[in-house]
Amino acid sequence: TTNINIMTLPKKNSDMPIEEFRKYGHQLIDWISNYLNSIENYPVLSIVKPNSIEKKLPVDPPKEHETMDDIFNDLNNIILPGITHWNHPGFMAYFNSTSSGPGILAELLSGAFNINGMIWKTSPASTELETVTLNWLRKMLQLPEKFQGIIYDLASISSLHAIAAAREQAKEIYTNFNINKLKIYISEQTHSSIEKAVKTLGLNSSSIVKIGVDDNFSMIPELLDETIKKDILNNFQPFCVVATFGTTSTASIDPISEISKICLKRNLWFHIDAAYAGSAAIIPEIRTYLNGVENADSLVLNPHKWMFIPIDLSVLFISKPKLLKKAFSVVPEYLKTNEDKNVINYMDYGIQLGRRFRSLKLWFVIRYFGINGLQKIIKEHIRLAKKFARYIDLDNNFVRLAPTYFSTVCFRAVPNLKLNDLELNKFNENLIEEINNSGVIFLSHTKLNGTFTIRLVISGIRTNEQYMEKAWNLIKTKTNYLINNYGN
Amino acid sequence: TTNINIMTLPKKNSDMPIEEFRKYGHQLIDWISNYLNSIENYPVLSIVKPNSIEKKLPVDPPKEHETMDDIFNDLNNIILPGITHWNHPGFMAYFNSTSSGPGILAELLSGAFNINGMIWKTSPASTELETVTLNWLRKMLQLPEKFQGIIYDLASISSLHAIAAAREQAKEIYTNFNINKLKIYISEQTHSSIEKAVKTLGLNSSSIVKIGVDDNFSMIPELLDETIKKDILNNFQPFCVVATFGTTSTASIDPISEISKICLKRNLWFHIDAAYAGSAAIIPEIRTYLNGVENADSLVLNPHKWMFIPIDLSVLFISKPKLLKKAFSVVPEYLKTNEDKNVINYMDYGIQLGRRFRSLKLWFVIRYFGINGLQKIIKEHIRLAKKFARYIDLDNNFVRLAPTYFSTVCFRAVPNLKLNDLELNKFNENLIEEINNSGVIFLSHTKLNGTFTIRLVISGIRTNEQYMEKAWNLIKTKTNYLINNYGN
Repeated sequence: TTNINIMTLPKKNSDMPIEEFRKYGHQLIDWISNYLNSIENYPVLSIVKPNSIEKKLPVDPPKEHETMDDIFNDLNNIILPGITHWNHPGFMAYFNSTSSGPGILAELLSGAFNINGMIWKTSPASTELETVTLNWLRKMLQLPEKFQGIIYDLASISSLHAIAAAREQAKEIYTNFNINKLKIYISEQTHSSIEKAVKTLGLNSSSIVKIGVDDNFSMIPELLDETIKKDILNNFQPFCVVATFGTTSTASIDPISEISKICLKRNLWFHIDAAYAGSAAIIPEIRTYLNGVENADSLVLNPHKWMFIPIDLSVLFISKPKLLKKAFSVVPEYLKTNEDKNVINYMDYGIQLGRRFRSLKLWFVIRYFGINGLQKIIKEHIRLAKKFARYIDLDNNFVRLAPTYFSTVCFRAVPNLKLNDLELNKFNENLIEEINNSGVIFLSHTKLNGTFTIRLVISGIRTNEQYMEKAWNLIKTKTNYLINNYGN
Repeated sequence: TTNINIMTLPKKNSDMPIEEFRKYGHQLIDWISNYLNSIENYPVLSIVKPNSIEKKLPVDPPKEHETMDDIFNDLNNIILPGITHWNHPGFMAYFNSTSSGPGILAELLSGAFNINGMIWKTSPASTELETVTLNWLRKMLQLPEKFQGIIYDLASISSLHAIAAAREQAKEIYTNFNINKLKIYISEQTHSSIEKAVKTLGLNSSSIVKIGVDDNFSMIPELLDETIKKDILNNFQPFCVVATFGTTSTASIDPISEISKICLKRNLWFHIDAAYAGSAAIIPEIRTYLNGVENADSLVLNPHKWMFIPIDLSVLFISKPKLLKKAFSVVPEYLKTNEDKNVINYMDYGIQLGRRFRSLKLWFVIRYFGINGLQKIIKEHIRLAKKFARYIDLDNNFVRLAPTYFSTVCFRAVPNLKLNDLELNKFNENLIEEINNSGVIFLSHTKLNGTFTIRLVISGIRTNEQYMEKAWNLIKTKTNYLINNYGN
C-alpha cells in the first residue's frame, strides 16, 4: 500500500561517519584494555591541586570541529592525572564500586541503543529485561515474591521513593494527616541520604528521630519502641523506620527482625537500606542477618556498589508498589498507549520520567559470572577483610573499633607513645594522609564516638589477597615511620 | 620509606581477563558500527507483543558462568526485536533523543573509569570538567555569569531541585511559612514532571495553579498576574512560576520576558523548563525568544535531548546555588576533606550523593562538532520541520494545529469526508497507528482542546531531508489509503 520500499535509503547523516566511529571505538577499547591492565601504575588517589585541571582547559568552547585524536590527547594529558582510580585494586575507601568487563560492555551497548524506557512501548526489551533480571536478583537474595523491583539511579533516590511511599501510606492511616507531625526513625549511624530525602519530601528536620546504637553500632530496638510510644502519646504521627544492613561508617547491622516486629505492631513502614551489604546477602551465611526482611515494606540495594556493575544502578524492592504509583503517577496524554493495561510502565513508579537501559548491565554481569561466580568473589572479599581484621587484632600498635561482618574494617593505630585522645586522633589523621599520599592504596575515615577511625573496605573486583597484604604492610610501615619520627 | 615498590605486582583478579575484554570489546564496537549503519532496516517501533521477551528469558538466574558469545547471541535474538530504535532516522516521536558517535565513546570511557564524582577528591577531573563544560554551555546559550551550572540525570530531577530551592527561598520570604499555603504557577501545557516534583516536595496538589494559554499555547501573563494577586489577598504564599521554552505537546513558548517581570515584581522564583528547546538557543535567531532569561532564577536544559549526547545528562543553571546547598547539604564525617574550602563538592547541591562522570559526554560532543557544527545540525532540523509544516499547510487533507517555532510540527488530517469531531479524532488515531505499524517512521500524539493531534519531531542526528520527505510521503499515502477505504 505504500511506495516507501522502493525509495533509495538515505545514507548521509550528521553524525560522525561510521568508519570513524569504528576506528576510534577500536582505539578506545585498546586504550581501556591497557588502562585496566596497568591501572596499578597510577596513583590510586589523584594528586592534582585544586583548579589545576580547569586551568589547562580552554575558557571558551571550540567554534569548529576538533578531531578525536585531539580529544584523546587531552584525555591522556589533562584528564587522566585528575582521575581517582575507583577501579584500582588499591581503592579501599568509602564503599568502593568497581566496574567489571561485562558491565563496561553493557554500558557501551546501552549508550549505543540510547533508548528511553519510560513506557513499555518505547522499548519493550528494557521494561521486560528489568522485570526478569530483578526477579533473578530477588531470588538470589531469597526475598519473598511480594517484593516488586524497580531500578533507579542511586540509593539516595531509591530511599527517597521508599519514604515517599511511606508518606503516602501515612495519609491513609492518619485521617488527620499533618506533614509537620510526621516522625521517621533512623539510627545515629544511618546514611545522610535519608536525612536529605526527608528534607526533600517536605518534612521538618525535627521529624527525623535518631535512635541510639549499642557497642556494635546497631540500633537499640527497645529505645526505638519507647520513643515511638512517647511520640504517639505526644500526638505525633510516626510513619516509618529505616534500618541499615551495612551502615556507612562501620558496616554494622541493625536488628532487622526485632525492628520488623515493632513496625508490624505499630503499623509503620519498614525500609531497609542495604545499599552496600545487600549484594553480600546472595551468600547464604550472610543472608541470615537479613532475617525479618520478609516483614519489611522496602529494601534498597546498589548492584553498582558490590556487584561489579558500573555506576549507576540502584534497586528498590517494594511490597506495595501501588503506593509508589499513587505518589508519582501523572500520565499526560502523549504517554497513554493501547497496552497500558497489559504492561508495566516503569515511569509510573518514580519521579524520573526518562529511564536509561540499565537492566542490560545487570543481565550481562549476572550471566557472565553466574551466581556461583558472584558468591565466590564476594566471599573472598569477606575472607580477606576478616584476615586483615585479625592482623589488626594481633598487632599491639592497632586496635579494631567495630565488628567486621562484611568487608569493611574499622581500626586505628594506638602506638605506645602515651598520647591523649586528641593526640591519638591527630596521629591517625597523619597516618591516613601518609598512606593516601603513597598512591598505592586509598583509605577513608569516619568518627566513632569522637574517635578518628580509619576504614579499609575490600569490595573491588581487582582487589586480591596480595593487595590486602600490600595494604597491611604499607599501613605497618607508615605507622612505624610516624612512631619513629614522632615529635620531630 | 616503604618496601612497596619492590614487591611483585599481583596480576590475577576476579574480573573478566583483559584479553577477553579486548576481544569482545572489539566485537561489540563492530556490532554497534554495523547496527548504526543499518539501523534503517529495523522497524523503528518494536512490534513485539507484551511479555513475549520475558517469556524467552529464563525464570531463574544462571548458577554458572555463561560466555559472552551466549550473551551476544541472546542480544541478537531476544533483545534486539524488543528495541524501539531511538537512534533510527525515522524516530520522530516525543522529543527524540539520539546518541552521536563521540557521545557513545564518552559513555564507554565513563563506564571504564567508573569514578563517583561525589566530592572533588574522588575525581578532581570530573568536578573540574563539569565546571568547565557547563561554563562553555552557558556561553553558548548567552546566559549571564550569575548562573552556576550543575549536571543531574534528567529534567524531572533538575526541576525538582529548582523548585526545592524556590521552597527554601519561600522559607526566608514568608516569616509565617506554611507548606500547605504555597502556590506554584504553571501553564496548562507545562510538563507533568513539574506536578510530580511539587507532589514529591510535600506540597498539596492544590498548590499547583494552572494558568490558561492563548491560541499559540503560551501562558497568558495577565492571567498569571491576576491569579497571583488574588492568591496573595487570600493569604496564600505564592513562591514560584514555571515557564516553558518548548512545551511537550506543541513546543510552544511562554512569554519569558513578561513573566520574568511579574516574578521580579512579586518576588517569586522564576524557573524555565527548556529541556528540549534549550539546545536550539545556541542559534542566535532562536536565542531571542529566551530574552528575559537574565531575570530568571533557574533554567533546565537536557543536552541528551537535542545535543546528541546519550541519555542521561540534564543541566540546571541556577542563580542562587547557595539555596540549593541550604536545601540539600548534609555532609557526614567521612566526606569531609581538607580541600572543602577551595573546591566545589557537587554532592552538596543535590539529592543524589553518587555522581557518574557525565561531563565527559558534554566535552566529547561539544569538541567533536564544535559550536558551528551543532548549530548547523539543529538549524537543519528546524528548516526541515518548517518545510514539513509548509507541506501540511498547502495540502487540503491536513491542517496544522500549532505554530512551529522549533522542530516539532502538530497537525492532523482533515479529509473531505464530512466527519464530526469524534470521527475526525478516530480517523487520526487510525492514521497514526497505520503509520507507526509501517516500521518506517514513529510519530506520537497529544490532545489539544480535545483534538487528537499528531506530532512530528525532527531532532535525531540521523534524520535528514530524505527522511522528512519519506515521512511526508508515507503520511500522505496512508491518509489516502484510509480515505479510499473509509467505511469499509
